[in-house]
Amino acid sequence: MKVISILGSTGSIGVQALEIVRLHPDLFKVASLAAGSNTRLLEQQIREFKPTLVSCVDSKTADELKRRLRDYSPPLRIEHSIEGTIRAATIPDAQLVVAGLPGSTGLIPTFSAVEAGKDVALATKEVLVMAGGLFMERARKKGVQLLPVDSEQSAIFQCLQGSGEAEIRRIILTASGGPFLDLPSAALADVTRDQALNHPRWKMGPKVTIDSATLMNKGFEVIEARWLFDVPGTKIEVVIHPQSIVHSMVEFADGSILSQLGPTDMRLPISYALAFPRRIESGAAPVSFPKIGSLTFMSPDYDRFPLLQAAFSVLEQEGTGPAIVLNAADEVAVELFLQGKIPFSKIAWIVQESLQSIPSASPGTLEEIMNFHEEIVEQVRSRWAS
Amino acid sequence: MKVISILGSTGSIGVQALEIVRLHPDLFKVASLAAGSNTRLLEQQIREFKPTLVSCVDSKTADELKRRLRDYSPPLRIEHSIEGTIRAATIPDAQLVVAGLPGSTGLIPTFSAVEAGKDVALATKEVLVMAGGLFMERARKKGVQLLPVDSEQSAIFQCLQGSGEAEIRRIILTASGGPFLDLPSAALADVTRDQALNHPRWKMGPKVTIDSATLMNKGFEVIEARWLFDVPGTKIEVVIHPQSIVHSMVEFADGSILSQLGPTDMRLPISYALAFPRRIESGAAPVSFPKIGSLTFMSPDYDRFPLLQAAFSVLEQEGTGPAIVLNAADEVAVELFLQGKIPFSKIAWIVQESLQSIPSASPGTLEEIMNFHEEIVEQVRSRWAS
Repeated sequence: MKVISILGSTGSIGVQALEIVRLHPDLFKVASLAAGSNTRLLEQQIREFKPTLVSCVDSKTADELKRRLRDYSPPLRIEHSIEGTIRAATIPDAQLVVAGLPGSTGLIPTFSAVEAGKDVALATKEVLVMAGGLFMERARKKGVQLLPVDSEQSAIFQCLQGSGEAEIRRIILTASGGPFLDLPSAALADVTRDQALNHPRWKMGPKVTIDSATLMNKGFEVIEARWLFDVPGTKIEVVIHPQSIVHSMVEFADGSILSQLGPTDMRLPISYALAFPRRIESGAAPVSFPKIGSLTFMSPDYDRFPLLQAAFSVLEQEGTGPAIVLNAADEVAVELFLQGKIPFSKIAWIVQESLQSIPSASPGTLEEIMNFHEEIVEQVRSRWAS
Repeated sequence: MKVISILGSTGSIGVQALEIVRLHPDLFKVASLAAGSNTRLLEQQIREFKPTLVSCVDSKTADELKRRLRDYSPPLRIEHSIEGTIRAATIPDAQLVVAGLPGSTGLIPTFSAVEAGKDVALATKEVLVMAGGLFMERARKKGVQLLPVDSEQSAIFQCLQGSGEAEIRRIILTASGGPFLDLPSAALADVTRDQALNHPRWKMGPKVTIDSATLMNKGFEVIEARWLFDVPGTKIEVVIHPQSIVHSMVEFADGSILSQLGPTDMRLPISYALAFPRRIESGAAPVSFPKIGSLTFMSPDYDRFPLLQAAFSVLEQEGTGPAIVLNAADEVAVELFLQGKIPFSKIAWIVQESLQSIPSASPGTLEEIMNFHEEIVEQVRSRWAS
């Protein structure tokens, strides 16, 4: 029986992680849940999975949750805010923490989980994008297992099992290409919020869906892979693969390539992370290759999708600053796009402009990283919000 | 330094195994070579790799080899016939034996290598097709490592590394489909020897090339996979994949699939088998997925290629006999086709007829298996040769 905590339990990753727990009540027990303000869903999750601690976004939401649970008798502490989330992330019973909080809010709780010696099923990209070096160092020191939940990183992680000390010659990150794969540059300016939120392959939260449409998400994955698998950016290749069946590949020193394939179902990487090193039923439908017929591959168009190139450039620069700027500027730009304040093509523009205009820095501690991030967010927001 | 023996050194597998040895003089040393009657090539191999024992097909060939090597002074024993091959397979210095002898002639020496406690890089399909159960049992008892050299079996073997005790839900064996993939049934009768020998993807010996054209080869691989990976035929699926980039796949209990991909270059599985568990430079060119563009998959046409179906049927039958009949009848039928005595479409006819007409048997020992094989070969040859 593995005892787990889920940070971001009402989000896409959290909900699917709980589906896996539901499939395997003999394997998993939920110690704590942390979520935002969706008290209706959180209430249901509490009643079904009976955690002993939950945390939500603020005291008002916590009060509402308490009202909803007036008739609920099992032992339960209801906490809130970042302190509550940290307590959920470090609850003594849990061995594994699913880090599925969206954006930079996931950073501190995920670090806390590692400091508390928990294995981490990592879905929050920002942890590695903003603080990859520091995070990997802490995880190594604490001897915790990092289990990527991203389908691409999970694919690479699966391909590397049993590879021993084999030299990685190349990581081939596949990308669906998003909804605008075939759209000419000029047309990208007129793209609507709904079009951008309509990803052809994956159902995900809004931020990552927009990031998929700009290929910023793939850029973040390049940075993630750099840290998770300790390879330079020059050994990472992005290949557009619209069917999203090949979830990524690793080429080894002999020229042999291993790849992980499957349906576009996040329950695959989630169940792998939860049950590692075992494989358990995930509920995912099997793939029929004759039915699929054809898997296609092409090079990404770096001109139309400059944020992918930006991620590679960031890896070539000195210091920890550029990746934080990339992430913060994108966070604000996507927020502005979702609020209808800027056109789609402006997202890349704002991020690129920020990378060029913001003076370089190299924050080292988690606090410095968070402060630098907040600073950039403020700066970018004040510059572009109006 | 790994000391190896190569059985079938002048054949396709042997020559490529020696290419790997040539690339890595610091990793491999050749203890012995066994070959047939190509004394010219064997002489060159002896001069380059300096084995201490070689064996060739008969005493006449051995005498010719001795003449060729009159000026050669390093220590060398020249032996011949099955006894010589067995001595090459069991030479005390060697840790690993590359079993690359063609057809049923490879059976006894490969068993000898296992009995002598050698790890075996297995290219000779007949070992598993004719005597899979017995061979796996002996290998287990002796605790030797079996390393498949077939590109498909190597792919599966590579996918299974690091899978722990994970349940195999399905093995997906890919098949190029051979040169006659798109040829209508009626046209198969008129196919020439040269057309059948012209495989679109792989350069191999004549027997396996013809077997690839009838898909008998894929059928043999189904039987091999059944024994190597201990899965029933019902868990093995054959998928036509004309590009031969995906060398095979394994689906696990969670629905996740691992596959091994690479160029159509036998040096990949050979170098993997030689250096296992390490990965070393193989000389194989890298694959560019954008350049390939598309990987296609379709179901095999069991009506046009009945020998593939025959292999699955054999796995469903009781006893060890049917697989031996399948193999022996095919050995004779391909020989007759290569001699121009029967048309291409008659190969499948002869094999199917033999499976139906020859009374069932279940030889248990290696001797019984070889005797039964010889008996079938005689029977089929005498019936169809004229």
